Formats: sequence, C-alpha cells, structure tokens
Amino acid sequence: MKNSKTAVLRLHCPDVPGIVYNVARFIFERGGNIIHAQQHKEEIDNRFFMRVHFDCTGMNVTKAQFQKELEELAGQFRMETSISFGDERKKMAIMVSRYDHCLYDLILKHKYGEINADICLIVSNHPDLEPVAESFSIPFFYIPVLPETKPQAEKQTLELFNRHYINFVVLARYMQILSPDFVNEYRNNIINVHHSFLPAFVGARPYHQAYERGVKLIGATSHYVTEDLDEGPIIYQECIHVNHTHSVEDLITMGRDIEKKVLSEAVKSHADDRIMVYRRRTIIFD
Amino acid sequence: MKNSKTAVLRLHCPDVPGIVYNVARFIFERGGNIIHAQQHKEEIDNRFFMRVHFDCTGMNVTKAQFQKELEELAGQFRMETSISFGDERKKMAIMVSRYDHCLYDLILKHKYGEINADICLIVSNHPDLEPVAESFSIPFFYIPVLPETKPQAEKQTLELFNRHYINFVVLARYMQILSPDFVNEYRNNIINVHHSFLPAFVGARPYHQAYERGVKLIGATSHYVTEDLDEGPIIYQECIHVNHTHSVEDLITMGRDIEKKVLSEAVKSHADDRIMVYRRRTIIFD
Amino acid sequence: MKNSKTAVLRLHCPDVPGIVYNVARFIFERGGNIIHAQQHKEEIDNRFFMRVHFDCTGMNVTKAQFQKELEELAGQFRMETSISFGDERKKMAIMVSRYDHCLYDLILKHKYGEINADICLIVSNHPDLEPVAESFSIPFFYIPVLPETKPQAEKQTLELFNRHYINFVVLARYMQILSPDFVNEYRNNIINVHHSFLPAFVGARPYHQAYERGVKLIGATSHYVTEDLDEGPIIYQECIHVNHTHSVEDLITMGRDIEKKVLSEAVKSHADDRIMVYRRRTIIFD
Amino acid sequence: MKNSKTAVLRLHCPDVPGIVYNVARFIFERGGNIIHAQQHKEEIDNRFFMRVHFDCTGMNVTKAQFQKELEELAGQFRMETSISFGDERKKMAIMVSRYDHCLYDLILKHKYGEINADICLIVSNHPDLEPVAESFSIPFFYIPVLPETKPQAEKQTLELFNRHYINFVVLARYMQILSPDFVNEYRNNIINVHHSFLPAFVGARPYHQAYERGVKLIGATSHYVTEDLDEGPIIYQECIHVNHTHSVEDLITMGRDIEKKVLSEAVKSHADDRIMVYRRRTIIFD
Repeated sequence: MKNSKTAVLRLHCPDVPGIVYNVARFIFERGGNIIHAQQHKEEIDNRFFMRVHFDCTGMNVTKAQFQKELEELAGQFRMETSISFGDERKKMAIMVSRYDHCLYDLILKHKYGEINADICLIVSNHPDLEPVAESFSIPFFYIPVLPETKPQAEKQTLELFNRHYINFVVLARYMQILSPDFVNEYRNNIINVHHSFLPAFVGARPYHQAYERGVKLIGATSHYVTEDLDEGPIIYQECIHVNHTHSVEDLITMGRDIEKKVLSEAVKSHADDRIMVYRRRTIIFD
Repeated sequence: MKNSKTAVLRLHCPDVPGIVYNVARFIFERGGNIIHAQQHKEEIDNRFFMRVHFDCTGMNVTKAQFQKELEELAGQFRMETSISFGDERKKMAIMVSRYDHCLYDLILKHKYGEINADICLIVSNHPDLEPVAESFSIPFFYIPVLPETKPQAEKQTLELFNRHYINFVVLARYMQILSPDFVNEYRNNIINVHHSFLPAFVGARPYHQAYERGVKLIGATSHYVTEDLDEGPIIYQECIHVNHTHSVEDLITMGRDIEKKVLSEAVKSHADDRIMVYRRRTIIFD
Repeated sequence: MKNSKTAVLRLHCPDVPGIVYNVARFIFERGGNIIHAQQHKEEIDNRFFMRVHFDCTGMNVTKAQFQKELEELAGQFRMETSISFGDERKKMAIMVSRYDHCLYDLILKHKYGEINADICLIVSNHPDLEPVAESFSIPFFYIPVLPETKPQAEKQTLELFNRHYINFVVLARYMQILSPDFVNEYRNNIINVHHSFLPAFVGARPYHQAYERGVKLIGATSHYVTEDLDEGPIIYQECIHVNHTHSVEDLITMGRDIEKKVLSEAVKSHADDRIMVYRRRTIIFD
Repeated sequence: MKNSKTAVLRLHCPDVPGIVYNVARFIFERGGNIIHAQQHKEEIDNRFFMRVHFDCTGMNVTKAQFQKELEELAGQFRMETSISFGDERKKMAIMVSRYDHCLYDLILKHKYGEINADICLIVSNHPDLEPVAESFSIPFFYIPVLPETKPQAEKQTLELFNRHYINFVVLARYMQILSPDFVNEYRNNIINVHHSFLPAFVGARPYHQAYERGVKLIGATSHYVTEDLDEGPIIYQECIHVNHTHSVEDLITMGRDIEKKVLSEAVKSHADDRIMVYRRRTIIFD
C-alpha cells in the first residue's frame, strides 16, 4: 500500500521498446527506489500500461521538479501520466440514500485502516442515516433531491465537494441518477455499486429480474459512473450460488454481503491508485 | 443416489393442507419406506413440489399397481406426478461437434459412477471425435448437418434415439441449433451448456463479448433447451474471476473447466431425477 | 424461516421403517400442516435424523398436550426430540473482547431481520465496545476477567444469563477460554468463531501460522464450544485464496470478512433450529 | 506465456536500492525488451524477488554471453538467478498409479496448449493406465515397486529421466513415497497433489479424516516434494463446501475435480517459470 514515504506513478502510451528501462532510469536518477513495478499491454490499440510504486525517501528533486521532468519523458513516449505522492492522502465523499449496509462497511473498513483515503463527508437525499454518520463523527449533509430541485441539489453538492477538496465520490447504494454534468466533474472518480453481475439485469430491481429468470447465481458489480447507466467500466464483481428455495427477499439479503464486498474492494483499489481506465475496461494492478 | 432397490416419486400440485401426510401414507401402506423427502413451495401460483426417495424392497404391490393407484391420489390433489424405479436406468445420448472437453468429462465421470444413467451413444455433425468414442467403446454416429439437410439429419437422429430408447440428450458443446420439432420430442430432456452466465451474453461468442465489456467474472450455464435459444430453464451456473491480463483465448481456456462443471452437474441431477421444471424455473432437490 | 405461526420439530432415533409416515401422521392428526420436512441418515450408528417445519394455525391441541403426546411417540421409536414453537423467540447473548467486526455484523444482520432471535445483551471483559452497544441500544455488561477472578466472573455471567433467560451464547471474537462448567450450562448452545479452517492451525495466532506455512488459502470456522478447545462440532467454514504478496496483517484483514460470514451463518442456522449435533458432526438442514 | 521469442529471468537477492533499474538496464543494453516485470519482497530476511519476461528478438548477444554477463550482475548484487529461453521447452514426466483423473486432465490441458512443456513419458508402478497413454501416443513405462525393489526401481526411473532429459516430474496421484535421494535429484522440480488442504489432514486417507472430523470444507493442495512428506512448499490450494449429506465416497468424488485443478495449475505455473521457492514458501508471479 502507498504510504507517506512512497509515490505511485501510472502511465500508458503506445507500446515501443525501452519503456520499462526508461521509466526505471527516470526514477533511479532522481533518487527514487522502485518497490514494485507492473506492466500490461492491451491487445486492442497495442497500448502499454505501467504502474510504479517507489520509495521517495532518497529523492534528490522536489515534487514539482519531478512532475515537470516527467512531462518531458511523457512527451518523448506520448504517455499519459499520473503521479500521486503518498504524503497527500485522497479525500473521499460518500453518497447514500436509506440502505446502510455499504455505508457501515466502508466506515468500518476505513477505521481498520483498509482504505488509503479520508472519509471527509457523507451526503444523502434522505435524513435517515445521519445518526450513523454521527456515531462515527463524520460530517453529514442532507440534500434532498426532487425532480424539480435536482439541478440545484447537484450544484449544491458539487460546491460542497469543492469546498472540501473531494477527490473521489462513492455511491453507497445512492438511489439517484447523476446528471452528465455532475459525472463530468468527477470522470473516473465516481464509484457505484450495482446489485447484479453486469451486464445481466441492468436497470431497476435486478434481484426481482434474477428471481424471475430463475438464475442459480446472483452477483454484484462496482463500476465507474458514466453517462450511460450501468455501462461504465467495471471494477470488481462477485457472485454467489442461489437456488429455488430463495425468495426475492432472500436474494436481497444474500446480495448485501456481496454488494459490500465489491464496493469496498473498488474503493480500496481506487484509493491506492491501482486502477487505470482505458476505453470501457479497467486495468487493476495488485 | 437412486439405486436398483429404491424409487423416486416427484409431484407438484396446488398447495393444500395434508399433502406430505397423504403421500407418506400412500407409500407406507404399499410397503415403501421413505429414505428422503423434500418439499418446496413456489410463491408464484402457490404451488407445492415434492420429491420422495423411498426403499422398495418391502413393496407389497407391483410397479403397475403402484402407478395406477398413484393416479387416484394424483386426481384427488390435482397432482402432476412422475415415478421412476431405480431398477430401470435412464439411457442418455450425447451430441457433440468438435470440442472434446465436455465429452471427456462426461465419459470419465460416468466411468467413475457419478452419473446414474447409461451413455448409449454419441452423435456428431463432425467425424473428429470418433476416436474418443472408440477408446471408451461407445457407439459413435456421424450425422453431418448442412442447411439443406438439417431436417433430414434431425429425423435420422430422432429415429436413432427411438431405436435405442434414449430418455434424455446432452449437448456437450454441440454447435447446431435444434428445431422446435426436435426440442418438442424431448421437452425438458435436452440439456445444453452455454458458455456465459446467462442472461448475460446470449448468442454467439460470449467470451469475446465478455472481453470487450471488460467483466471481472466469466461464467457458464447449463439449461434445458427450449424453442427460444439460451432462454430455457437454468439448471446450474458457475463463474470465476478474471482480470485485465486475460486475453479472449485465456477466457476460453478458463471457461472450459466451468463448462464441464455446470454440464456434468446438470446431467447428474437430471439422471437422478432431482430436477423439476415449473415455468421458467427449475426446482433441484439435493 | 420459522415464524410466529409455525413450529419446528427435530428428532433422531435408530433407523427403522415408517418413521417419516408416523411423524407426518402425528402432526397431521393434531391439525398441523407440514411445510417442509427433511431427513438424514448417519451411516455411523445407522441413526435417522429429521426436522419438520409445520404450520400451527390449525392445531387442535395445546402446546403442552402436543409435547406430552410427542413423548409417547418418542418412546415408541426411542427418539430424542426437540420442539420449538415460533411464537417463543430465542434469546441470545453476545460475548466480545475488543474486536468489533463480528459484533457489528451480528447487530446489523439482526437489524435487517436475518437472525430469528433477540439480542438481549452484550458481555465483555473490556469496556471498549460499550459505545457500539449503546448506539444500538443493547444492554452492555463489562465483566473483567483476571486469572484470579475468572471463576467469579463466569458465575456473574451465568447469573446474568439466567436472569435474562438467555437460550444461547455467541462468542464474537471473545478472547477468553470458558471453563468446562460454563460450557456445560450451555452445551451445544455456545457458538464460537475460530480464525482458521479447522483442524488446521488450532490454537493461538492462526494467521501467523498460516503465513509461515505459506498456505494459499486461509479460512475461518464457526463451531459449538466444547471442553476441548477448537475441537467442537463444526457448523460453518469458509476460505479465500491468498498469495505471497499478503503479509500477516493482510491475512488478518482478509480474514475479518470470512470470520463475520461463518459466525453469522452459524447464528442464523442455530436461531432457526436448523442444526442437530451428533457426536462430533453437525447436521444442518436448510 | 513464455514463447519461442521470449525469455524469463528470475532472481532473488538482498534488498538494496537500484535493483529494478539495474536489471532493466542489463536487459535493455543487450537488446531485450521487457514485456512484463514483477517484484516481491519477503519481509523475513528482507529479500527481493523479481521475474522479468522479455522479448529476445532484438538481442545483440548470444545466449551464452547473456548468461555469462548475467553472472557478473548477480555477483554484484549477490543474486541467485535463473534464465530460461522460450525456444527450449521444458520436458516433463508424469508418474501415476491407478487413478486416472489427474492424468487425463494433464494430458488434455497439454493438448489444448495450456501447459508450456512437453509430456515426454509416463511412469507407473501399475500397468493399468497404459491404454490411456497409448490413446494419446505417450510412451508408458511400467516400473513396479515392491519394498525390496524400491531402490532399484528408483534408479531405473532416474536413468529413464536422464535419458529423456526430463526437467521436472509430476506425481499425478502416484501412491509411492519417493526416497530423499530421488527427491534430491529433482529438488523443487517434483510436483505432488495431496487430497486435503494442507496442513490439515496430512498423511493417509484425508477424506476419511475429514468426514470423521465433520468439516464443512474439503480441499486439495499441490506442492513441491521434499524429504518431509506433505511438508513441501505449497503451490496451489482449492477447497469446496461439503455438508452432512456427503459420505466419504461423495467427498472422494467431489475431491477429484479440485485435485485436478490444483495439480494442473501448479504444472502450468511451473512450466512457465512463474514459481520461485524461498524457504517453505512459494512466490508465484502471474
């Protein structure tokens, strides 16, 4: 896991010889020491991806210099790069409605040190979960959403996020659809959980759909939110066996545990800069 | 597992009080001894399902009498019943094309005594797998299928099945679509394997679809064949985690093991009279 | 699930013909209607087990009469029986130390209606988790345990349980070993979670043991507590894959989710009278 | 997967700054292009491990030169190194007794191209599986083993392996214990499958032990063979849920599928030079 003495560099570019060597040299010459480097090549587009986790304690340039010089390397290889220093922890916001299972799970996993980010605030379109937020001393903002007030509510939410320097947003069973404008502000930084193994059972009431189709597996999916509902890049999926004895209510109950799992795994990976998105696919380094 | 000294009674009917007692009495009075009985109620239609596995060694009526008297009981409760005596083993046919992994798996599991039926013959639209059939001394019939000869080929196949008293058919990656007429002859007695977790990725090339969607789970499904392709009642499903490092070829490779698993489990359950179909759902007693 | 209008009868006895029929008749004649009946035969000892879930709304005898007449049936077949009427919910106590993950999980699952019992109180040998108990309005009793005060502390705990009519006890990562006398008071009614897949890694620090052995799976086990530590009848087990990248701390983190799972599944099954213990094995009807 | 145009370098050494850079430079300067590099640090001993998969098509030195110069690098960092060029496929031998499920699985997976090695021969202490070997045209050697002939039989086997340049050996349910001398000849190159999740149920009849203990999971383990039976470094483990309805025979049946899985996964990883052994733990790069 990234920590206050390390940094994570992620990059992707057209695949040509020498990338690994040049990146390793770049970091070595600036006093960084590579702890872990991972690579991947997407067959489509012949594109090369890399994540480097390195120790910064011996760094002989400032962070600003490092970033500036990185731009030169990036230009040379036509790279898209992203550098994240571990001494600047990410700030996350959680959006919820009335279900509390994912919220509790995220808060507790954060408390155990499993999530490499700070939970700065919780926003909800219902007041119900304020006591949960309070019992963990997390600021809670009740921002109701009605069809006619939705643009205003989203504006208010974004202002709140700006004021708190929020880096990414977790929809922990938030039952409102975000507008494209909102999504654009946090592209690849809004994580949602859908209660089916996508692409099966998109849309509403997936457990009811699953029951009626008589499937023998139900699943849950965490994904980045895009303009197209349930179509964003998938981050994590899990499924469990079910059988004819299970009612829709049983499926909902059984589903809660896997919803928690897929959402918290996605949040952990995102917070630790392990995910890269390319087209509709995610590359998740471990 | 059903054996030569036991029988399996399956029935379903509208749910009213006293069914379990009356069925238990019916069997008891005819000298049968219940080893295992299971029940299920489908909420939709308020319908009651039951499977009774009983010892026949002390039976005081003939099989014909038992069946005749069972009809009376069935009439009284408006039951649909099905009785299967373990001294009459089911006869199965396997249909294949060129892939051999499911075929080997079925033959070997049969050899180990895991499948409560006889593999009577193998039919294929390609000659490739004849040596496999031969090495296990199973009759192999090569019946090519071209668009213009398909009706004739199906007719020939059905005649073959009739001649061998085939009870049920297993499509072990058979790459032809069966006509509704063929399906009708073996309703709820043709088992297919589809290489995705239905209802995701119906139709052709599901592993390619899965790769492009960037899913993190792939699956396989065994189901009864109906007129609507990939829409029949699901029997068994399995899935495994995949990630960005896996190419389409990797998915195909990884999928083979779960295809084998879901198909063989379905065949075992079917052979042992554990499955009941109601509408689009299967009730599978264990 | 058992509810206020149904009852659960569990019994076991030497296997002879006619048990299912006689039990079905017994219930039928007293106006009960069987919803679900399950049977099992242990090969060792040729012993027959049965669980019957039946509707009581039409019962034509009192509960006391039912129980008295059941004794006669039991005598006839040399049965051990146990009847549980759904209008009398079980009362459970939770014992914890400092870890809160299993505690939260049980409380939340109870809140969602997944556990068919009442959480009456929490006992701990540390004061740390009192705020958790408070935030859910569950009485919390801090009973410290020192080597010299242990007998007194156990006595105090048992008195507390008696006063609250506690039926069963859940050790949610309670870090004290209970004395044989305590165990005897709640035989087959104390559920513990051990953080390994027993019988591997009995005793202390199983995750450290697992790390050192270099296993590729870690597990968790829920079991009934007996005099012999970690040797009681196993109720539920779960495991997950691990690899060389995982430190002991990672194993501990990953283990929390499966500890929660195995413990809550055991509690659900116990509360719903689904478990029967015979020698060292559990029979768990679903 | 390694192929005829690529090579795999594995190394481990005390962890000091600059290793990744220096290895990357070493390969770059000799015209290799890194496709995939992975690193790992064992906390115990502060030891650094690395696997580099690189493209050799542009290499400007001979393989011999590469190896010689690698020794210099190794000396500088006190590395243990191992280089494997993909144009030299590994040769494997399979040892079996009477069970054929793992044998079939390995042969078929090899046929599908999943195993990056050649199956050169099969050795058995029983003649039973010769027809299987024949049906796939693999040389079969029947070498009976009696207590008094064991040293001679092992000698004969080793000579056979030498004659065929065997690189590694797979015990596919081979029911004989190999002597320390035999093991020494193929240290970390003999892969065994044990039919339990080690360290539970070492020794004989693990499924019987599992049944008697009443576990709810059974497992299988593949591992390198050492002098201490069932104590070698674990490569892969898998487990599945079982319950009270399963007899010992059922466990044996269910176990076959996971035995196949853990053995074939181990063989694939070994053949592709993905495994490094350090003390009792395996580091398996993917």
